[in-house]
Amino acid sequence: MRTRPLKVALLGCGVVGSEVARIMTTHADDLAARIGAPVELAGVAVRRPSKVREGIPQDLVTTDATALVKRGDIDVVVEVIGGIEPARSLITTAFEHGASVVSANKALLAQDGAALHAAADQHGKDLYYEAAVAGAIPLIRPLRESLAGDKVNRVLGIVNGTTNFILDKMDSTGAGYQEALDEATALGYAEADPTADVEGFDAAAKAAILAGIAFHTRVRLDDVYREGMTEVTAADFASAKEMGCTIKLLAICERAEDGRSVTARVHPAMIPLTHPLASVRGAYNAVFVESDASGQLMFYGPGAGGAPTASAVLGDLVAVCRNRLSGTTGPGESAYAALPVEGMGEVVTRYHISLDVADKPGVLAQVATVFAEHGVSIDTVRQQGKDGEASLVVVTHRASDAALGGTVEALRKLDTVRGVASIMRVEGE
Amino acid sequence: MRTRPLKVALLGCGVVGSEVARIMTTHADDLAARIGAPVELAGVAVRRPSKVREGIPQDLVTTDATALVKRGDIDVVVEVIGGIEPARSLITTAFEHGASVVSANKALLAQDGAALHAAADQHGKDLYYEAAVAGAIPLIRPLRESLAGDKVNRVLGIVNGTTNFILDKMDSTGAGYQEALDEATALGYAEADPTADVEGFDAAAKAAILAGIAFHTRVRLDDVYREGMTEVTAADFASAKEMGCTIKLLAICERAEDGRSVTARVHPAMIPLTHPLASVRGAYNAVFVESDASGQLMFYGPGAGGAPTASAVLGDLVAVCRNRLSGTTGPGESAYAALPVEGMGEVVTRYHISLDVADKPGVLAQVATVFAEHGVSIDTVRQQGKDGEASLVVVTHRASDAALGGTVEALRKLDTVRGVASIMRVEGE
Repeated sequence: MRTRPLKVALLGCGVVGSEVARIMTTHADDLAARIGAPVELAGVAVRRPSKVREGIPQDLVTTDATALVKRGDIDVVVEVIGGIEPARSLITTAFEHGASVVSANKALLAQDGAALHAAADQHGKDLYYEAAVAGAIPLIRPLRESLAGDKVNRVLGIVNGTTNFILDKMDSTGAGYQEALDEATALGYAEADPTADVEGFDAAAKAAILAGIAFHTRVRLDDVYREGMTEVTAADFASAKEMGCTIKLLAICERAEDGRSVTARVHPAMIPLTHPLASVRGAYNAVFVESDASGQLMFYGPGAGGAPTASAVLGDLVAVCRNRLSGTTGPGESAYAALPVEGMGEVVTRYHISLDVADKPGVLAQVATVFAEHGVSIDTVRQQGKDGEASLVVVTHRASDAALGGTVEALRKLDTVRGVASIMRVEGE
Repeated sequence: MRTRPLKVALLGCGVVGSEVARIMTTHADDLAARIGAPVELAGVAVRRPSKVREGIPQDLVTTDATALVKRGDIDVVVEVIGGIEPARSLITTAFEHGASVVSANKALLAQDGAALHAAADQHGKDLYYEAAVAGAIPLIRPLRESLAGDKVNRVLGIVNGTTNFILDKMDSTGAGYQEALDEATALGYAEADPTADVEGFDAAAKAAILAGIAFHTRVRLDDVYREGMTEVTAADFASAKEMGCTIKLLAICERAEDGRSVTARVHPAMIPLTHPLASVRGAYNAVFVESDASGQLMFYGPGAGGAPTASAVLGDLVAVCRNRLSGTTGPGESAYAALPVEGMGEVVTRYHISLDVADKPGVLAQVATVFAEHGVSIDTVRQQGKDGEASLVVVTHRASDAALGGTVEALRKLDTVRGVASIMRVEGE
């Protein structure tokens, strides 16, 4: 074994960074044996240097992250500060000064993955980011390497633990959104400002990353259709139950049936209770991957948290260190397929639509005519009425989002339709 | 991209080999883009050369596998013939003549993994075998690479599809073992001679491979305790249901609580219905991995079949070809921890024991005394009696297999105990 240690610079020492540092110290012998050389924490860049950090010698701590990545003797920079800047500049600077990079930064990878990969490539360095998607769950490596000989057709997953906790709570207790969110906040599953989670921004970043790797195509964050889950109601869960379904916030990356384009989207959807994703509880994540040869694979585990995310970071760190010792780099960006990324209108799925309608004869015929005129075929209709008010629940066969949108627009114009109470996609059947 | 193709020799062209050849042909462009060079099927060694194989030019077919691996221009040998010989000699010869190897051969890897790794290492070649465990499910790579910075404590999995199909059928229909086996045979899930599956040999080989990688320790096939599932009865399933459990044939690789030794075993066990492994249906496989930092991860998918296994083989083929192009090799055997592998007596778990006893006062006291004398603590006892016959169902707290064995031996000597109807371990709680 080589005795000269590989030097690691840690950018950020919060929940994840402190776990990375802790494991690097407590498992130093194991890491050395697995890498073939010792690894040494050479510097830790933080915002608040005065904070006491157990196990981290004070002389390693600095507030000057730029100087740290420019030192020139750093082998691997571990970036766990998150956000776009200064993370982006620091990573680019790290490559320029000879370091490889392990990052857990989903927002940055989703927005600027192509440029960062190009910078890594230009300097002959590695950019690894298993921790950016679904915490400890190995997803990037299986998609990029294990399935490298297969053709992935769909990635369907629960990739945000906060929203899964909230939806699971609503499902199991009948609570409304706000009540479930409050509990998630109290238990530390939701941040004070939960926007990134509940509006689907976090999941959309992960969807962009997964779609890019799965389809060997650049998928930008802007390419991902995004709909949050703040408008999911207890009534929606009641409707889902009647269908033998539950509701999950899903990230869905799909190859079109003709194989010539792909889509990526995040939105709440009904999925059958018999689908393995339906039983993913609490803050856990799970991702289904459907491929030509392998069929359906599922990956399940904790999607966030300091230790699980650190586990993913350290797996990457070992791989990058091994590459460094053998003078090579791992697989970089693979975007050769360059498939067009279509918008939401091209997505084909099924829909569950609740309408408030006048309780009088002929309404169903009117509504059915509108669906037919837009080429949306109806699977089932359920009609409930009392006191002059009635509701119609329509479940369609597969139709494009554009066709469904046109249908709903026309339904709203009918005198007999008082309102569209909810529209929910039905997935995983 | 390099234009000179990498040459692949395929050993075996059965269910898996023919799928490997098919995908190599139909997805040639994708494989070339992902590898960075085209891959070419340079020869196919078979036993029956006269059989027509769609898509495989007859001039590639040979019965002389040894000559094929000795050609000297072969970059990668894909071994999908199975069994110990001639597979072992062919793989060793391949290394000697400059080729890396991708194998799906669990029996060989479990028996001779260390020697094969040493041969690969000696010649600076790769030995990859993702397909040897759980078909298409990425397990070897996640354990060896994604979790390289973590400490794995337990691997708990359903790694044999045939037996899971049979047990699932017994559970859902109340069928007996023979009836369920007959259906599995009729549907092609069980082979004419099902011994390797139902007696747990296949699962034991996989357990040896998984334990070795998970614990960085050589685990030989002989180190794995093995108990088949041919004696599981409908009555056992009824008992399991009363416990809120089902029965699965599990491969369990565990680090002892003090961390100083490991065990590996295969046997039927009760697991709670709430455990994710309980809902793994039909011929699917799933493996739970518990680690210090990552917590619980689960990997799920088709555990066998031509196309899924070929997917795993091709993922390895891409990785090995990339390594070859960059003049490096991937991670080899990691056995530095060299932990002692303990026998079954050291395993600590819970037990469900059904006793046929005389229906008279004092029996329970006698039985309870025997448990106490052997240091096995009782969790619950259920007593049922009629017509002078009675049964006692005892569920224990955690105890070593050795202590339980001593208990059962002593119970058999009691006049009031007419027989030990069944002993089943309880896992996954």
